Amino acid sequence: MSFDVEFYFDFSSPYGYLASCQIDDLALRYGRGVNWRPMMLGVAMKQTGGQPLLHIPLKGEYSTHDLARTARRLDIPFTIPEQFPINSLAASRAFYWIDDNYPERSRNFAKAAFRMFFGEGSDISMPMVVADIAESLGVDRKALMLGLMDSDVKNRLRMETNIAVERGVFGSPFILVDGEPFWGADRLNDLEHWLDVGGW
Amino acid sequence: MSFDVEFYFDFSSPYGYLASCQIDDLALRYGRGVNWRPMMLGVAMKQTGGQPLLHIPLKGEYSTHDLARTARRLDIPFTIPEQFPINSLAASRAFYWIDDNYPERSRNFAKAAFRMFFGEGSDISMPMVVADIAESLGVDRKALMLGLMDSDVKNRLRMETNIAVERGVFGSPFILVDGEPFWGADRLNDLEHWLDVGGW
Repeated sequence: MSFDVEFYFDFSSPYGYLASCQIDDLALRYGRGVNWRPMMLGVAMKQTGGQPLLHIPLKGEYSTHDLARTARRLDIPFTIPEQFPINSLAASRAFYWIDDNYPERSRNFAKAAFRMFFGEGSDISMPMVVADIAESLGVDRKALMLGLMDSDVKNRLRMETNIAVERGVFGSPFILVDGEPFWGADRLNDLEHWLDVGGW
Repeated sequence: MSFDVEFYFDFSSPYGYLASCQIDDLALRYGRGVNWRPMMLGVAMKQTGGQPLLHIPLKGEYSTHDLARTARRLDIPFTIPEQFPINSLAASRAFYWIDDNYPERSRNFAKAAFRMFFGEGSDISMPMVVADIAESLGVDRKALMLGLMDSDVKNRLRMETNIAVERGVFGSPFILVDGEPFWGADRLNDLEHWLDVGGW
């Protein structure tokens, strides 16, 4: 199986969450694996001058409506959490620490963190909440809490974010397949068609 | 046939063009007609603080790529015109003047203007070019040129734009069906599903 579907997202991105519920199954239908790559969207958005989506007049109200509608259509549990948007540093750093120490669990951690945040409204900006999620997946809680403060882990997230920006990533979700960029949960149909026919 | 699919667009919007090539056929599959409503996107964008899409760093480059890719997939002729973006006042005013005087020709005028601009790269900000397009559809050229300067026509476009903003329109294309909003050419799949099942 080739793993060259690169899935960039920020844990604070609701459309990133909707994509996260679909991307693995979609890629698998075409024999592809997915590299999950959390990053700090705020860094990318400095380049585009973008604002947090749901705070923009008109566009924010529309997007809130569209998110709920899309989640209903896909039968995905969805809420706008009370604490939103959040600082996703703890969740993102936890992902990379888990990816280094329990490589087979990092993806499940990402799915569980997204689900706790946008499915149940828990505040995943808090390291304790992140540790709870990781612990439920069999991760050593104490080691993870230390890992979150490790400068190697902080640098890793910074480096992954820089790589993303260099590759042109400016939003979440942002998917690269064989170098081809797809921005937005609403591009999954196009992505699927691309995987199906091998580009056009 | 019910005509309650409201299709809002700006003639300077490339995603509006892509939607314009699909919207009538899509609605017709569900026995619906479409009200074509050009408006001044700049007025709506004052509310959202939006920038012209293709001028935004990273996002602009991505969108240029995505537009060409989407047009290829849909087999729609597409180019980014040399003069772009343009002031679409002349084309929009012409639309409403034709809609009043040759109601059965306004939609074909809109399609032809979009096609001349994004299909062939002609500068439809120029009243002479707009008049050429209208004349080719059997519209009285001289009467139209006078109409473009008529304050009633100017007010009509202003009014239609205000109505759009009041209805929450902040982008192009923006489609309302039975009050339900769909923003972006990438929401046509959702719109189709909505027409198919009557909402969800």
